[in-house]
Amino acid sequence: MTPRISAERLLGDLAELARIGGRADGGVDRVAGTEADLEARRWLAGRIEAAGLEARHDEIGNVFGRTPGSRGPWLLLGSHTDTVPAGGRLDGAYGVVAGLEVLRSLHETGHPAAAAIEVVSFYDEEGVGAGGGLRGSTHLCSSPHVAELSGYLELHIEQGPRLEAEGLELGVVEGIVGIDRWDVVFRGAANHAGTTPYALRRDAGAAAGRLLHRLRDLVQGVDPEMVANIGAVTLLPGAANVVPGVARLVVEMRALAPDSLARAAAALRGEATAAAAEADCEVELAPRSAVPPAPMAASMIAALEAACAGSGRPWRRLVSGAGHDAGRLAGLVPAGMLFVPSRGGVSHSPEEHTEEALLTQGAWVFQYAILQTLGFPSS
Amino acid sequence: MTPRISAERLLGDLAELARIGGRADGGVDRVAGTEADLEARRWLAGRIEAAGLEARHDEIGNVFGRTPGSRGPWLLLGSHTDTVPAGGRLDGAYGVVAGLEVLRSLHETGHPAAAAIEVVSFYDEEGVGAGGGLRGSTHLCSSPHVAELSGYLELHIEQGPRLEAEGLELGVVEGIVGIDRWDVVFRGAANHAGTTPYALRRDAGAAAGRLLHRLRDLVQGVDPEMVANIGAVTLLPGAANVVPGVARLVVEMRALAPDSLARAAAALRGEATAAAAEADCEVELAPRSAVPPAPMAASMIAALEAACAGSGRPWRRLVSGAGHDAGRLAGLVPAGMLFVPSRGGVSHSPEEHTEEALLTQGAWVFQYAILQTLGFPSS
Repeated sequence: MTPRISAERLLGDLAELARIGGRADGGVDRVAGTEADLEARRWLAGRIEAAGLEARHDEIGNVFGRTPGSRGPWLLLGSHTDTVPAGGRLDGAYGVVAGLEVLRSLHETGHPAAAAIEVVSFYDEEGVGAGGGLRGSTHLCSSPHVAELSGYLELHIEQGPRLEAEGLELGVVEGIVGIDRWDVVFRGAANHAGTTPYALRRDAGAAAGRLLHRLRDLVQGVDPEMVANIGAVTLLPGAANVVPGVARLVVEMRALAPDSLARAAAALRGEATAAAAEADCEVELAPRSAVPPAPMAASMIAALEAACAGSGRPWRRLVSGAGHDAGRLAGLVPAGMLFVPSRGGVSHSPEEHTEEALLTQGAWVFQYAILQTLGFPSS
Repeated sequence: MTPRISAERLLGDLAELARIGGRADGGVDRVAGTEADLEARRWLAGRIEAAGLEARHDEIGNVFGRTPGSRGPWLLLGSHTDTVPAGGRLDGAYGVVAGLEVLRSLHETGHPAAAAIEVVSFYDEEGVGAGGGLRGSTHLCSSPHVAELSGYLELHIEQGPRLEAEGLELGVVEGIVGIDRWDVVFRGAANHAGTTPYALRRDAGAAAGRLLHRLRDLVQGVDPEMVANIGAVTLLPGAANVVPGVARLVVEMRALAPDSLARAAAALRGEATAAAAEADCEVELAPRSAVPPAPMAASMIAALEAACAGSGRPWRRLVSGAGHDAGRLAGLVPAGMLFVPSRGGVSHSPEEHTEEALLTQGAWVFQYAILQTLGFPSS
């Protein structure tokens, strides 16, 4: 018999957690390290203990919960309770609360799987402050406890529009994209915008404009599944009447295939060099950061797919374009992720929303996959 | 007999004036309204009086000098003594000091033309602070004194690279460009740069990039003599991992022909609309400011051309891409301008430079043209 997820308890916990750092507009301010973040982690430990489970903290601030006396290895279930400023009530919180409800429901019915499960809320996934985010999962990966884990599963909202746009209710994550960022600087010459004829201009802004305009075709030509972005551009000196002598921007590229990132980087260099030459400028490209792609484990993908198929609800495989704690764990233990739709694809916003029926259904399918993974086929 | 310009006095005055607000790097800080600016205008009044001429101020801070007892009408000669921050020693100062030397040399030899000449240093040409610049000449144009003027002539450094690039020593200004500025705002949708597939993006930065890249061809297609510039772009919200939902920029367009400005505006609207459509964005264009073109008077152009031709030195006609006090006067009195080369085209910088021989020669040719204009053919 499969223990029943309690929709009431799941949604009740989500509502309680949303009040911690809650905003009048329905959003949540619970940036890692703030008082609201601390309160959320205290609240979680309290909920773990109220379920008769054992709560503990590690030194960075991850909160864990498990069946008292259980000896591992554990399948870790979790996500994070911190948010971006003016974030939503589901990003992270949904996975933590659902993980707790899965374990709680197994524990209260005395199901043997309960002893093989641990829940976690990772500290500072979002990385609003210094540290770059994913701090709790990164810390865990370098701690001895990671050797006591049999795997990691994370339930999360999609934070993108694809499932909703295709009328789907569940998404099995194939992998989490790698993210390469490049600092690009075009250098020309700042000149008077009235007295300098075109033949003598070295307009760094025109070169940057070509890259802004062509980036999409450039990366789509490399890999139709990958995306890239230029989110900000600085032209210097920055006056309406001065031809810009310098243009600085960051190109961000995301792909699941490492080869795609490498080929896109080569294409970027080629296009930037051509854009610079056209405007009589020079260009410098330098790697700014690189997060490698994190494919999910085939075993976890299979278990989640079986659970989705068993649910009878419409689903698909998809790549996560956003980073997650699961990406950190994936290098060390078999990891998997399940997505539910995000209304309008909106996240990191008070507008973030998923229907309650989809949240409950997601937790049910998640639990089904967990039991499969632990060798307890559902009845 | 043509009275002789004194190179020593001309260059000596320039050197003295450059020490007021002078910087260690050879540049000048003499922003209108600062103590250095006041000191420069006191110094000029002193130099006028030391030459036996009559100095006066008007209420805005213009400094005038004329032969005592002269009754007009006067041919006004001048420019300005204010600078941009970290400006050069010649922009404005050269025209004021040369105007004084022309009048001084005529006055000391008792030449009858002296009574028909007035020199001026206009207050706040540069417009570093509020007020938009050209404040002194704008004030004069609305004062009764403008009716007592027979014309206006201004000697200035080119502030551009054309004369030097062509090996020329003198430039006769045909007119001063009109300057239209347009506020352009592209509006798309800010979205997560990882989770939003290209088909669902509305990237305002890509639309802005197309305009940045194509602006040159756009205006050159309208009028090969005109120029345009985008000196700054703001993408919002401005994060590397967020598709920009808004792009703001100012397009500046300069042309001598009013018709070119009108046709370029229509072409800008067409290109911006196409760029917006390509990126699934909307675009708004709004006029920000418009300074009309100011053609120089045919009589003044002819006199300056005759002087250049008479000098035997290489010269050309050209359009001033920068604004000048002469542009304000041109609507009310016959106005003309003579340019000397700027090394490397550099101005508004401590690097601003013109060889002393070219400065002296420019003043000599300027005086020749003035005497022609006043009906005193040179011997």
